[in-house]
Amino acid sequence: MTDLEAAVTELQARVQRLDDQAAIYQLIATYGPAADSGWSEMAASLWTEDGIYDAQVGAWQGRPAIAGMIDGDTHQGYIHAGCAHVLTMPHITVDGDTAVATCYGQLFRNDGENFRIWRVTATRWELRRETDGWHIANRVNKLLDGDASARELLRRGIER
Amino acid sequence: MTDLEAAVTELQARVQRLDDQAAIYQLIATYGPAADSGWSEMAASLWTEDGIYDAQVGAWQGRPAIAGMIDGDTHQGYIHAGCAHVLTMPHITVDGDTAVATCYGQLFRNDGENFRIWRVTATRWELRRETDGWHIANRVNKLLDGDASARELLRRGIER
Amino acid sequence: MTDLEAAVTELQARVQRLDDQAAIYQLIATYGPAADSGWSEMAASLWTEDGIYDAQVGAWQGRPAIAGMIDGDTHQGYIHAGCAHVLTMPHITVDGDTAVATCYGQLFRNDGENFRIWRVTATRWELRRETDGWHIANRVNKLLDGDASARELLRRGIER
Repeated sequence: MTDLEAAVTELQARVQRLDDQAAIYQLIATYGPAADSGWSEMAASLWTEDGIYDAQVGAWQGRPAIAGMIDGDTHQGYIHAGCAHVLTMPHITVDGDTAVATCYGQLFRNDGENFRIWRVTATRWELRRETDGWHIANRVNKLLDGDASARELLRRGIER
Repeated sequence: MTDLEAAVTELQARVQRLDDQAAIYQLIATYGPAADSGWSEMAASLWTEDGIYDAQVGAWQGRPAIAGMIDGDTHQGYIHAGCAHVLTMPHITVDGDTAVATCYGQLFRNDGENFRIWRVTATRWELRRETDGWHIANRVNKLLDGDASARELLRRGIER
Repeated sequence: MTDLEAAVTELQARVQRLDDQAAIYQLIATYGPAADSGWSEMAASLWTEDGIYDAQVGAWQGRPAIAGMIDGDTHQGYIHAGCAHVLTMPHITVDGDTAVATCYGQLFRNDGENFRIWRVTATRWELRRETDGWHIANRVNKLLDGDASARELLRRGIER
């Protein structure tokens, strides 16, 4: 292999890592707009076919179940009164075709005059690379109410 | 074209996409600090010469008008009492020399003791690549108060 | 130098800039999970050996001092009652082996039922590239309470 070939091979590896980080940012930045617009099919399509969303207030497995949560009365009540599901910039660890992203999830709800912070959770995204890109195999939320499980989730997410 | 030339050409296209995503993150991350420091010229320079900012509570076209909003009594009152214009990590779609970014805009205001969430909006950024980089051709905010227009804005932003 | 060699050299410079931006995002996205999980050693490791954290409510220099803040009664009280230290997507300027990142820091605290926004600060991260990657040489928070020092911090961060 020539020096130039080696340089190109090294660049390909670096660009792949950047592509993964950028794609996972895009995936996570899609959830809020999908959920808050009530676009259940789009929200569900972010998961793998058999993906799990364990939101602590409820758990759903598979795209139809996740779409059903978005279409359900509780979620529809939230979005028709005004809300924002905000995910913060995540920490990401990629290991081949799997990845873990760790961030905070915030639910802001309109209270008529201003907004109230309904929930702030520690959020873990276990991701899998499939032929059409990254999908969520398992997403877990833990309410930051002082319980040790939320601290454990945050700590696991940034282990090296 | 040799294999190596083809590999370099492919890398150039991938790096261009990453550069665009990174540059748009930087653009959006500049607005809050410019607005909250009262640096009207910097805030206005993020837009194209004839760019529009339709913030629902008001609409301004062109850099002088946008700078005037920052210099105006309402905005100055906010920043001198303490506030933060926070934009969340956006979803971005690039199409040649135009792009759409979609995220949430939050206005946190100091209420003496802590902070209150004054507004949470769905925010759409229609961007244009100019010779000196990306600029905002049109930015639209829609308050998340349950009105269908905010849901529509979020949905349009993540359409594939 | 051939055209192909020149193209590879240019790509290397572009990828280096992207790597720096991506690495600084990762660094900043590590602070919240480290602080909110009480992992004092991890939080402190984000700083240089002699790094400074001037949080306005207190200032600490060196990793042992920063770890001590995390292990201290005030911080432990916060995390055992439930809190989130959220850093927003930063604006970043890299200049060789130093960089400045500017964003907002938010402290959300569980108030039993929902969450309250305890503090929103303008946050400046002065970063240094060391052999094992980027570290924080100096982090400064300024409360957004209308004081000019916070506006000055935000303005300095986005100067070109």
